[in-house]
Amino acid sequence: MDESTKRLPALYDSLASRRGDPANYAPLTPISFLSRTADVHPELESLVYGARRDTWRTTEARVQAMGQALNALGIKAHDTVSVLLYNTPEMFETHFSVPLTGAVLNTINVRLEADTIAYIMDFAETRALIVDRELLPRAIEGWQARKDRGIDVPIILIDDPAAATAPEIPDGLPLYRYEDLVREHALEPSSYRAAIVGDELDPLSINFTSGTTGRPKGVVYHHRGAYLMSLGTIAGWAVPRHPRYLYLVPMFHCNGWCHVWMMTAMAATVHCMRGIDPARVFDIVRREGITHFAGAPIVLNMLAGSKDAPARLADDRVVHCMTAGAPPPAAVLGRMESMGCEIIHTYGLTETYGHILECEPQPAWGELEVDALAEQKARQGVRFPTVEGVRVVDRESGDPVPADGETLGEIEIRGNLVMSGYLKNPEATEESLGSGWFASGDLAVRHPDGYIQIRDRAKDIIISGGENISSVEIENALYKHPAVGEAAVVAMPHETWGETPCAFVELLAGKEATEAELIAHCADRLARFKKPGKVIFGPLPKTATGKIQKYELRKRFS
Amino acid sequence: MDESTKRLPALYDSLASRRGDPANYAPLTPISFLSRTADVHPELESLVYGARRDTWRTTEARVQAMGQALNALGIKAHDTVSVLLYNTPEMFETHFSVPLTGAVLNTINVRLEADTIAYIMDFAETRALIVDRELLPRAIEGWQARKDRGIDVPIILIDDPAAATAPEIPDGLPLYRYEDLVREHALEPSSYRAAIVGDELDPLSINFTSGTTGRPKGVVYHHRGAYLMSLGTIAGWAVPRHPRYLYLVPMFHCNGWCHVWMMTAMAATVHCMRGIDPARVFDIVRREGITHFAGAPIVLNMLAGSKDAPARLADDRVVHCMTAGAPPPAAVLGRMESMGCEIIHTYGLTETYGHILECEPQPAWGELEVDALAEQKARQGVRFPTVEGVRVVDRESGDPVPADGETLGEIEIRGNLVMSGYLKNPEATEESLGSGWFASGDLAVRHPDGYIQIRDRAKDIIISGGENISSVEIENALYKHPAVGEAAVVAMPHETWGETPCAFVELLAGKEATEAELIAHCADRLARFKKPGKVIFGPLPKTATGKIQKYELRKRFS
Repeated sequence: MDESTKRLPALYDSLASRRGDPANYAPLTPISFLSRTADVHPELESLVYGARRDTWRTTEARVQAMGQALNALGIKAHDTVSVLLYNTPEMFETHFSVPLTGAVLNTINVRLEADTIAYIMDFAETRALIVDRELLPRAIEGWQARKDRGIDVPIILIDDPAAATAPEIPDGLPLYRYEDLVREHALEPSSYRAAIVGDELDPLSINFTSGTTGRPKGVVYHHRGAYLMSLGTIAGWAVPRHPRYLYLVPMFHCNGWCHVWMMTAMAATVHCMRGIDPARVFDIVRREGITHFAGAPIVLNMLAGSKDAPARLADDRVVHCMTAGAPPPAAVLGRMESMGCEIIHTYGLTETYGHILECEPQPAWGELEVDALAEQKARQGVRFPTVEGVRVVDRESGDPVPADGETLGEIEIRGNLVMSGYLKNPEATEESLGSGWFASGDLAVRHPDGYIQIRDRAKDIIISGGENISSVEIENALYKHPAVGEAAVVAMPHETWGETPCAFVELLAGKEATEAELIAHCADRLARFKKPGKVIFGPLPKTATGKIQKYELRKRFS
Repeated sequence: MDESTKRLPALYDSLASRRGDPANYAPLTPISFLSRTADVHPELESLVYGARRDTWRTTEARVQAMGQALNALGIKAHDTVSVLLYNTPEMFETHFSVPLTGAVLNTINVRLEADTIAYIMDFAETRALIVDRELLPRAIEGWQARKDRGIDVPIILIDDPAAATAPEIPDGLPLYRYEDLVREHALEPSSYRAAIVGDELDPLSINFTSGTTGRPKGVVYHHRGAYLMSLGTIAGWAVPRHPRYLYLVPMFHCNGWCHVWMMTAMAATVHCMRGIDPARVFDIVRREGITHFAGAPIVLNMLAGSKDAPARLADDRVVHCMTAGAPPPAAVLGRMESMGCEIIHTYGLTETYGHILECEPQPAWGELEVDALAEQKARQGVRFPTVEGVRVVDRESGDPVPADGETLGEIEIRGNLVMSGYLKNPEATEESLGSGWFASGDLAVRHPDGYIQIRDRAKDIIISGGENISSVEIENALYKHPAVGEAAVVAMPHETWGETPCAFVELLAGKEATEAELIAHCADRLARFKKPGKVIFGPLPKTATGKIQKYELRKRFS
């Protein structure tokens, strides 16, 4: 756009000074959905967890109280508050209470090992920690790392009686109990405040993602993005008023695909669970009238394959299910649909606030045979209404690939639902955003109807049980074994987990190690789900310049 | 917020330069909904008008061609394109083609007289005019006014065969036919472009308000506001995929309540009509499977009172209807609901992009008796999800009124859905936005559940013997009389009481009632001091938009 286009004509001169007026401008923030829903539906159930049934009035009160408490503990605008929590009501609440104070919510994957948790807590410059009692032992190392830098991070403990274990709590920690804080800092409704948002592009949350480079990268979300993600999901998924939503997506993944804010906007009743137990899922779906849930393909796999799976999820309604990523096997989809599930397939990444493509149904699909329909629905589809641009480009030329359903290209995304960038990592940020499009690293084709279908995930990521595992991280662990000369880890298909890491190892001359020994070695150093499922010994294929040819290793499975 | 809150900590330094990157930022504009819907649902019907049935592919092609044509006629970014059109497909298209070029759409009320049209065309500095053949004669004066300033405004004529009249076209006008332009400037899809939006706060459209006194004021909308209005309506009205929408709200009113963009986002099929003929409305609703429509109370009145009204609008579905403003009489609502209409009551102004309050139904209302339910639903309600703030304040103190359902105050609104201001009228802009809230001039109460109910326009309140009397309340009482067709109540000077209510009544054809009878009818239903002091029978004067002109009625006393 040239300069003349940027300048408004004199006709609008008298309005120029009105831009950003409080009367006609407010920064977009998903936190605003809570006060509206609490105002309009104070008596409606907000969060259900075991015997606990909160209303939106209660949720707002607890969020406001926790906001006060965080301030009392020294939290200021833009400070990082790290949380290590299961999908409990408190996890939901922190998505509002932390940004309410202007602080930034850093959600940490509960399956990570203490060392990585410590890395994340330190790297994100954590100023407070909210943690489930069961997970506290794995956070101590992180607390100590901050302490070593002179920051005595207050720990807010959630003493959930449903926790499987109640580990002993070490002495000397600056420990506060979540419920005590909520009680002590309770406010009159007249003192409730709006979220502190200086600029809608200011950080709202950080979601660490396992990259190919070993250490996870901190993906920064802003208020505007999460707000538009929420509204786009409502339009794209056509979410009705007051859904009854079962929260199976971990809220530490892309803030639970931003459904925490989206469901608040629609005054949903949100059902929480610490973990996924199929029998309990089926029970809650039926008993509580669940209308919507979302989950990674592995979750669908788990439900469809469960011995407790009912013939129908519910007798009186369709249950809407959103899934994401590589399509679950057709058999799983068929099984879920026969149970009365209406599945919508989506695609997204941590870097895009979660799902940005959806396999939006076409009215004409109503006439298709079952198999043809399944083929249409297994694709990842088209962009959500608030996603500005998605394209599939040739990795060499950068040109869009033809919509022929065959030519592979890389998915690129642009617009308001692309992250601000990676925290303190300008090189990685430049690499992924520098071209004016976010390069996903995922390979896909475009069908003649414009729908996109993923063909191959980014080469070095293994997706096992819905978790991203960095192959480099496992390789680094393997390299620590005294007998390992060279190691390369790739994804191997797995019946239950979708994928599992397979390690190819060349031992040092004269050294010895067994498969079991190397797996145990990794298990000692990594989160359990990251250990290789298999180790294959032998020389590794290399390029002329000495790079290991992972694509050659992958061929060994096909 | 203090300065320290505005500055981000060093943690985010490396992301600062990324703000506004094309990769992770796009200005919000409702024009973006069209390309998405045309991409995803090219074969779905977009616009239906008589025998014409366009698809979204066609609509996008026509919009892109018209954008080219406007440029060829000299239109540049931020130029004003005035349109004087009925609710035809071309009117819908101009809501996209004009902003596509970066120009500003100025929609002119088709019921205005030539002199006011000329004033608006000139005041808005019109650079091109798109006009229906039937309306051209009333635009000549405006064209001449621009000519007198040295601007030879090109006229794009829509030669609609459905026009009631085909007036002779004066010679010497720079006349272009819409269909010729669309044909001549057709583009290959590969050449389609995105809307030119330098800044999302740049002007998108101008809607002149039909002021009850003096010249109309030009209300300026921006891209961001119309985008958020659209998404907020989808969430607030819970609009499903692919509604079949009958466009009864004139698109020259708040851009048809912004439904033109909202319905595009949901890939609706939009049915157009030049005017409202109840028999045709009922026929289209039934035959075309209409699921949604919207209209002013006067339209509902017309439909409910029509001799062609069917027992049910449709046998197989509820038809969703949005109405706005002062509540239609209970009898009208009851009649529409008995026909199978699900009515949602809303409130808004031209200055707020249309509706910003909605009477969002409460799940608990399902248990109410018919009358109690009607009472709940006759209120204007709560803010839409994308409206930041609405309050009711005492006009003296500026403090919020208690939520007691009794204390009158003025409705004030703030946030992204408040206009940029009045065009070239800084005084009026300052007066309405200067306090940090947009002062609506409408008086309302807040009920204990937080729902707002309009009582009156500030200037329509009657003060009798020191008591405030709502004219709407008396009008509602009058409407309950079986002989009353239309009623308007205004303040009449009174020697003792200062003012007393005077009712103007138009009886239904073939029905009879005396003055004494109607006063007694009111006395039975209202506090004694509220009953009209006088009833005057006869037709009621109306504005071009069908609003009763109370100021004309008031003149009858002076």
